[in-house]
Amino acid sequence: MQLLKDRIQQDGIVMEGNVLKVDSFLNHQMDVTLFNEIGKEFARRFAGCGVNKILTVEASGIGIACITAQHFNVPVVFAKKSKTKNIAGEVYTSRVVSYTHGREYDIMVSKRFLGPADRVLLIDDFLANGAALLGLAEIVEASGATLVGAGIVIEKGFQPGGKLVRDRGIRVESLAVIASMDEKNGITFA
Amino acid sequence: MQLLKDRIQQDGIVMEGNVLKVDSFLNHQMDVTLFNEIGKEFARRFAGCGVNKILTVEASGIGIACITAQHFNVPVVFAKKSKTKNIAGEVYTSRVVSYTHGREYDIMVSKRFLGPADRVLLIDDFLANGAALLGLAEIVEASGATLVGAGIVIEKGFQPGGKLVRDRGIRVESLAVIASMDEKNGITFA
Repeated sequence: MQLLKDRIQQDGIVMEGNVLKVDSFLNHQMDVTLFNEIGKEFARRFAGCGVNKILTVEASGIGIACITAQHFNVPVVFAKKSKTKNIAGEVYTSRVVSYTHGREYDIMVSKRFLGPADRVLLIDDFLANGAALLGLAEIVEASGATLVGAGIVIEKGFQPGGKLVRDRGIRVESLAVIASMDEKNGITFA
Repeated sequence: MQLLKDRIQQDGIVMEGNVLKVDSFLNHQMDVTLFNEIGKEFARRFAGCGVNKILTVEASGIGIACITAQHFNVPVVFAKKSKTKNIAGEVYTSRVVSYTHGREYDIMVSKRFLGPADRVLLIDDFLANGAALLGLAEIVEASGATLVGAGIVIEKGFQPGGKLVRDRGIRVESLAVIASMDEKNGITFA
């Protein structure tokens, strides 16, 4: 998606430790006009797949998922990272080991909001090591729902997540795949 | 907002400890069609106020804020929650004491995304004790931005937050104000 790649080149900042900072438009400040184009593109790529639910994980996936959901006319469910008083009863859970943040956490979705009748599209802002995405896929599988695929805004193609997820037979559509990046030479797309 | 009140009556569940569970359409599963009507209503109430930025806090405010932002044609910034002390300098921070979840946390916003040129509308799903909203207001004040007001989906009118925030001179527009609720008699709106 050229509009997105141009924006990453223009406003993305490459930092030490394979960190791409896109917090001016994607995951801290959010450009909803760009999100709308992203949503349109996901809807084009997953047209005719019968998607009836979008699943993401808090926090930075939620905005993209909600705007994208308008183009599918379906509800969004976001997996929660910690148990709160607002989730009672039975939940699907999965353990996520985040290499990026160096910690482990559980994600959970109420059993009331995923089931065998659902055809689920996963949405997230980044795909790097694939930990969060595989956790979401595990939850979809446990629920008996059908996993249609995953729509990713930025995939770090030089990290193992993309291969790992596709090797499980999951369709992944990434709108920008970064082949390489460093502080000196900037970003190269695949 | 009648559509919202009807939905709360239909799908909201009153639980022990003043908990109103609306996770089937508001803060776990999210009905983006309803969010669109909510966004329209906020845009109507804050029309002509020159809002050029929407500020919310992760996680459940993000979806509503993004859909609402489409009706103002402005970007969203979400404050991040952190349990660890953050280094002052690059971020505005505020300490939030959450009575609902029985814990304290810091919220933070990068200084790059809020400044004196901004006219900020706060958006959140709930107003109960007002802790999160006052934290956001403190961040807006620290940045030198103008606080236009706060758009709240559900205000628990029997808890002190609404009065506390309005007493600070902040305009609060709540789309549904709950006067009382209990497990036996259900929900009464103000």
